[in-house]
Amino acid sequence: MEKRELLYEGKAKRIYATDDQNVVWAEYKDFATALNGEKKEEIAGKGVLTNGITSLLFLKLHEAGIPSHFIKQISDTEQLIKKVTIIPLEVVTRNIVAGSLSKRLGAEEGQPLKQPIVEFYYKDDALGDPLLTEAHIQELDLATEEEVQLLKQKALDVNTVLSSLFAEIGVRLIDFKLEFGKLADGEIILADEISPDTCRLWDAETEEKLDKDIFRRNLGNLVNGYQTIYSKLGGRQYV
Amino acid sequence: MEKRELLYEGKAKRIYATDDQNVVWAEYKDFATALNGEKKEEIAGKGVLTNGITSLLFLKLHEAGIPSHFIKQISDTEQLIKKVTIIPLEVVTRNIVAGSLSKRLGAEEGQPLKQPIVEFYYKDDALGDPLLTEAHIQELDLATEEEVQLLKQKALDVNTVLSSLFAEIGVRLIDFKLEFGKLADGEIILADEISPDTCRLWDAETEEKLDKDIFRRNLGNLVNGYQTIYSKLGGRQYV
Repeated sequence: MEKRELLYEGKAKRIYATDDQNVVWAEYKDFATALNGEKKEEIAGKGVLTNGITSLLFLKLHEAGIPSHFIKQISDTEQLIKKVTIIPLEVVTRNIVAGSLSKRLGAEEGQPLKQPIVEFYYKDDALGDPLLTEAHIQELDLATEEEVQLLKQKALDVNTVLSSLFAEIGVRLIDFKLEFGKLADGEIILADEISPDTCRLWDAETEEKLDKDIFRRNLGNLVNGYQTIYSKLGGRQYV
Repeated sequence: MEKRELLYEGKAKRIYATDDQNVVWAEYKDFATALNGEKKEEIAGKGVLTNGITSLLFLKLHEAGIPSHFIKQISDTEQLIKKVTIIPLEVVTRNIVAGSLSKRLGAEEGQPLKQPIVEFYYKDDALGDPLLTEAHIQELDLATEEEVQLLKQKALDVNTVLSSLFAEIGVRLIDFKLEFGKLADGEIILADEISPDTCRLWDAETEEKLDKDIFRRNLGNLVNGYQTIYSKLGGRQYV
């Protein structure tokens, strides 16, 4: 596989073309951003951890029968993935009240939800990634009604697998954001990444935050939390 | 009917008990507020217009087979209404993009929607009346799934009647907010008010705003717009 031109550079990743038109090359960067890009910092060691954790979690999901765009990890910071057209929705699944949901509902962080909640946010930085209802999604033609139901079901399936996986290593999956993409034939598959950048993960005993809230809320060095997650999942020691 | 103690004072109304425990006495005030109470002003003549328009619209809805808490208008600024327990949801129905929907979708004000959209906002000033999805409504126990469907259908029924009524007098119903309440026996009926305080109403020809956006956006004296609506509906001249 040969790495070709840069197709896209996001906040935390670069995506390159390859000599196979169905495959792209993802490179995880050492950058952390928060508050819709207002807070930004280079953090050594972040790229290897988000790449390592994402690769490991996509493999676990694959074993559990949930396919994704992930093909294989090819270096500490790189992976090969299937080329998809990203659906511009951030699909957020929540088990426990935290972050914006706490403000929206006037509920304490840490309060368990009666049942998992799936929310859709419009992936649009200029608009501040606003919450959308299903009617808004139809109005914007972002997904059909059937696709919305499919995304919701896939998100809940991922939640079941990951909640149990994290519970086994003493970590609570509070909430997480997924993105989905369409393959050339129209099939919708899980895409983007799954890491402490996109999940809230708390130590089940101490409630210590092991995710990007460390960075968002200035609670210390985020790579320590990310390394804890990676180590508990059986990954290498980087920091 | 005898007026008794003050039960509640809101931004634009006072509600009094009466000698009938199923009936309360509403008095419309001359106050306009916007931006979650940050902007506030006493505006002479507002109370008579919002009371007059609300009374007239509830009568029209009643004739169209849509019951509400409205019993009768008893003075320029007062009406008798059935006592209900308000469901803490602002039910917003939209035909045309305006206000917060314009910001949420990144769409121009004035753009027609493919079909009417019903949104639910949490009636909670301290939280800034946030948008809720149906999952949030279930989590907060604000209404059952069946009740949410009922509210949505009632809002669309009101939209059909009012859109046609306003079209007849050369006014476009852009969007509007309804509140619903429960009678002692649990029946859900339309409540609160329907006036240019709670609807966006544009002159169909000139697109002149004839609603509270005049006040929110400092476009002139709101009572002139409200009087235009009331006069077109066949009401008295007050200003």
